Amino acid sequence: MRILGIDPGSRITGYGIIEKRGNRLLHIDNGAITTRSSDELANRLKVIYRDLEQVITEYAPNAVAIEQIFVAKNAQSALKLGHARGAAMLAGVNANLTVAEYTAIEVKNAVVGYGRAEKRQVQQMVRMLLNLPEIAQEDASDALAVAICHAHSARITQLKRS
Amino acid sequence: MRILGIDPGSRITGYGIIEKRGNRLLHIDNGAITTRSSDELANRLKVIYRDLEQVITEYAPNAVAIEQIFVAKNAQSALKLGHARGAAMLAGVNANLTVAEYTAIEVKNAVVGYGRAEKRQVQQMVRMLLNLPEIAQEDASDALAVAICHAHSARITQLKRS
Repeated sequence: MRILGIDPGSRITGYGIIEKRGNRLLHIDNGAITTRSSDELANRLKVIYRDLEQVITEYAPNAVAIEQIFVAKNAQSALKLGHARGAAMLAGVNANLTVAEYTAIEVKNAVVGYGRAEKRQVQQMVRMLLNLPEIAQEDASDALAVAICHAHSARITQLKRS
Repeated sequence: MRILGIDPGSRITGYGIIEKRGNRLLHIDNGAITTRSSDELANRLKVIYRDLEQVITEYAPNAVAIEQIFVAKNAQSALKLGHARGAAMLAGVNANLTVAEYTAIEVKNAVVGYGRAEKRQVQQMVRMLLNLPEIAQEDASDALAVAICHAHSARITQLKRS
């Protein structure tokens, strides 16, 4: 099963594709979609949506995993992040994929085995689990982490659609 | 020129289509897209996007107008609203339409001539300007208001694409 993890942001949206074969996790690809802050919001959303659409077409994942967000610095940054996250979720759901949401604690638990792990620890574990030559770009690494969380999650069986 | 106004919300998204003929404004249609709060967020975004896509296909507007949002009760509701607003903007921009944003003050100024007008006054003026038999559903009325704002706006000439 192939999983597309997404870490959305209005400036940078990270993505990572992994494949679960039995108990093994394989890294397929990762990257970051960067939008120009000078661009209008609508056009930035279009870029995020279109690029994720291309990633989905290219790698044909079976599911999308995305971090659930509870906190944001303030209402204004939450609003911006919401737009980007909405665009990312739509790219998945419009391709008829299940979009699973995980909290940061669930992701850290799944990757490091400790819900309060630090960012750096998570990045290191992602690198090790997926046999990457080096730590991936920050947002791409976060996207791979949530994909790993989905791969490890018991919820897969509930969410998987025939 | 036809304008689609949108008032996005994670529960109810209002829309309104008006047509500007010279100095006259004609009401074409208005309505509200309701999503089930029991549904997963991704599916609610899908409904908003798909229904607006249908509205755009049916009425072929030349532009989309949407209210710019600066305040939200808190970060959590801002995040939710952001998702819905992102889905609405994407429906416009993916149909190659310009998405114009107006502040609440700009909308009130355009509709009532007074930036601090009360909600009820705006609804009454929307009804009168568009010759509606009665006040439209609240969110649909807000959507018509922002469409009227776009029709009245000098920005149209800047934003209009050949």
